[in-house]
Parts: sequence; structure tokens; C-alpha cells
Amino acid sequence: MTWHLDYHTPTRGLTFACDQVLYTETSNYQKIEIVQSQDFGKVMLLDGVLMVTEKDEFVYHEMLSLPSLNTHPNPRKVLIIGGGDCGTLSRVLSHPGVEHVIQVEIDEMVSRVARLHFPQLCMAADDPRAELIFGDGIAFVKDQVEAYDVILIDSTDPVGPAEGLFRKAFFGDCLKALKSDGILCLQSESPWIENLRDVIHIVNEDLKSLFEVVMPYTAAIQTYQAGLWMFQMASRKYHPLSYQALTRAQYCPVPCKYYNAELHMAAFSLPGFVFA
Amino acid sequence: MTWHLDYHTPTRGLTFACDQVLYTETSNYQKIEIVQSQDFGKVMLLDGVLMVTEKDEFVYHEMLSLPSLNTHPNPRKVLIIGGGDCGTLSRVLSHPGVEHVIQVEIDEMVSRVARLHFPQLCMAADDPRAELIFGDGIAFVKDQVEAYDVILIDSTDPVGPAEGLFRKAFFGDCLKALKSDGILCLQSESPWIENLRDVIHIVNEDLKSLFEVVMPYTAAIQTYQAGLWMFQMASRKYHPLSYQALTRAQYCPVPCKYYNAELHMAAFSLPGFVFA
Repeated sequence: MTWHLDYHTPTRGLTFACDQVLYTETSNYQKIEIVQSQDFGKVMLLDGVLMVTEKDEFVYHEMLSLPSLNTHPNPRKVLIIGGGDCGTLSRVLSHPGVEHVIQVEIDEMVSRVARLHFPQLCMAADDPRAELIFGDGIAFVKDQVEAYDVILIDSTDPVGPAEGLFRKAFFGDCLKALKSDGILCLQSESPWIENLRDVIHIVNEDLKSLFEVVMPYTAAIQTYQAGLWMFQMASRKYHPLSYQALTRAQYCPVPCKYYNAELHMAAFSLPGFVFA
Repeated sequence: MTWHLDYHTPTRGLTFACDQVLYTETSNYQKIEIVQSQDFGKVMLLDGVLMVTEKDEFVYHEMLSLPSLNTHPNPRKVLIIGGGDCGTLSRVLSHPGVEHVIQVEIDEMVSRVARLHFPQLCMAADDPRAELIFGDGIAFVKDQVEAYDVILIDSTDPVGPAEGLFRKAFFGDCLKALKSDGILCLQSESPWIENLRDVIHIVNEDLKSLFEVVMPYTAAIQTYQAGLWMFQMASRKYHPLSYQALTRAQYCPVPCKYYNAELHMAAFSLPGFVFA
């Protein structure tokens, strides 16, 4: 048995026992590892950083996708940037109104490895409504015009290949790629880690300069930095706390283990320190 | 520099770098250590388990005390069981309506050490409204009858000296010690850790067999097990989500860094998995 240490800062981290390393390979973009852990089942690490666990992947994937899918009255066409493990895709396709999902993941090897080790997530990729593109999401979005109801940014941390996904220029391209009533939602790191809280603030300002409605929200993800995670929903028209959105959350057709109608509302109530 | 590993289960934990050990002593009840950490400032460990940090003590202490203090229309007399570091006491005494607080901590050495290393919390002990008793909280509560508006159980984990504080017999004694419209609130561990989730369920059933209103709620405490913590409020009369309670939360006179009126409401919305 070995212990993996997932650094949250250079001087703190989550450490957990692993029975074995199931896979390790370096792609063109990053080192990809799958380990079998005692507490979290299989875990995918990218460049040594925990990305997905069998045990609690549902929190991140439900909370990235469902608040937006229920805020939009009719999300038919969805774009996912990143999301190579297909956990977000699987929730989006569980929404019966969705007709077409394009997923643009930069690292094909992530999806190939996920297919083997997280098959419960990757079945979604076989859905005829899913279209998987392996390439640069930033370049892809530049060419899209008024095409999507919802865009979800399912990225790694803002270093290396994902850095550009936290930039204002990219958010502007997403705005252009959305239909006039479209919704953009992205993961935006942990408010407990100081330099990540700076990321949250910058992303929030950038989104507010582009979108009419910008609503940050949280989810408790035990295996991510400091256990509290943030997302930001940006919309040209719809508000996540409208009566209609809350009603749709109440009748959400996607089976969930974390998200529910009460949390759809509660997640947008932030602790004071986040934007203090 | 050394690294402390705070075990959350035997096979996972939070690890953090410490510059030095400032204090270490064994009392009649437990080993008490104060370490200077890089990320969390001073940290108090009891039997090697993280209890209080300078950096984020505010979350636990605000969230244990203020939801109940704002749910009760006129909390004049308050009993704290445990709470030796005086962080809860400091928030209770910030509430201007409170006339008298009795705190019963079993381990006097915890309070003495806190006085030296967490003076910002322990100033509260000098307030003339505060009465500090060092002794067995379980025995103390047995002798009390209809004496308190609010009882707060600020305990360590349910092993060793704190085990009895999670028992139905103790909750029954608390019920007797409360006035007819009194409120009991206790910390009840992390829902992410399986055997602690069992504790949450048992405590919840026990409280429901005694009190009319039982409302579990959460807070994101980065340094406690898995980053998500639960509390349970049990009341003979008042509901934390009543119009009156929410109004009091809105005008809460206690300065806070985590708790606010929105969170007073949101904290009671639980992820599906907690009581699944």
C-alpha cells in the first residue's frame, strides 16, 4: 500500500492510501494515472492532481451541469469544453430535452483511459446525440456563432492546457457562440485557497462585464481542494433563482445523489468570506 | 519543517506543514498540542486530531451558535457543553440579548492553553455574563431543570470523553434542562465519512424521538473531516426557517465572516446522499 499526496498548496494536501497503480502514461498534454484507492475507489490523476473518483464524481458532474440545464427552459444544444471523462456528458444526456451535445476535449488519451476505468460514465459517449471532438476547445469556440443553448466548461485547474479557459477573451468567444438566451457555466476552483479565490474574483468580474446575469455557487466536493468548490453561471437572459427555474429543478428528470431542488436554490447562497 | 497528518479515516487524511510545536502536554483527559502551521496559523490538536485553527475557526463557531441564537426570539440564558477554546462562547456573548452563559468544559487545561494561544477567542471568558465551570457536562445537565433558552454542544468526536454527548439519554437530559421553548444544537460530524454518517443518522432519530422540530444543517469547514460538517438543531417550539427566524438572521447583530441571512436558510438544504 502506498499513499498519494494531492497538494492543495505547497504546504497542505489530501493524502490517501492506494492499493495499486492501474495505469500510468504520459500523453502530449499531461501525465495520466489511474490508482485504486481505499477510500475513493478508482481515482484519475492528471499531472499528479486528483480529477475524478468513483466515490464522489457525482457531486462535481451534477453540480456543473444541472443548475444550468434547469435554468434554461429548453436546453436542446449543449457544448462541453473539456470533460474528457464523460461524467458531465452523462448528466447532460440524461436530460430528455437535450438533442445534441458536442464535447471538445483536448486530450484524447484522457477519454480512452476513462472508457476503460470509468465505463459507467463513458456509456454516454455512445448516445447518438453525443458528438466527441478531440481538439482545442478555445480554437473551436472561436468559430461558433449563436449555436448553443448551454456551454459547460469542464476544465482542469488554470495552469497548463486549461489556462486559457479562464480568460476573458475565451468568455467573450463563448458569449458569441451562445444563442441570444444562452447560458455559460464553468468550474471556478476553491474559495478556501487564497490564490484560487483570486481566480474566482477575476473570473467573476470578467463574466459580469460580458453577461447580464452572473451567479456564482458552491458544492461540497470532499476530494477537491479544501472540500468546497465554486462554479459560476453566466446568462444573457435567464436567472437560476427564477420561479420557472426553481420549478424545473423541482421536476428535474435526471436522477441525482447530490443535486436537488432545495440545493439548486441554496447553492447560490455564499459564505461571507468568499467575496469579502 | 514537519508535516502533521490529521487522519479522517485510517486510510485518508489532511496533511499540512508545521514550522514548530508551540506546546505539548497531556492532561487527565487527552494530549493537547499547539502547532504553528504554514496554512492555518496556530492549530490546536487534541489526541492528534485537529480541533481549532486560527484561520478558519470562525466557520465552526459561527455555525454552531448563530442559527440557534437567531431562531430563538429571545435567547437570554445559554448553556455551552464543551467549547473549552471559548470560540463558541465569544459568538454567543456577541449577541446583545444574552444575559448569562454557563460553559461546562471537562478539561480545564484546554481552556488554559487556549487562553495563551487563542487570546482573541478567550477574551469572551472575561465578560461578566460568562460563567466557566470545569467539570463533567453530562453530570451537570442531569441536575438542570427548565433553565436554558439555548444549549449548544461543542464537543470533540464521539470517542473518549465526548462519547456520552452523542447519546439519547444525554439529549433527554438536555430536553429537561431547556425551558419549554428551548433549543438544543450540536455538532454532529461529517456526512462524507461513512461511520460518521451513521452517527448523524442515529443522532437524528434520537432527537426526533424527543423534540418537535429537528433540523440538520451543514457548513463547509476546510480543516475538518472531508470539508463538510453537520450540525443538528432540535427545538420544542421554534423553526429555523420561520419568517421570524429569517428576519432575525437578516438583522443579526453579530459580525460574521461565514454566516449570513442567506446561509441561515441555505444551510438546511442537504445534499441528497446525506439521508439517502
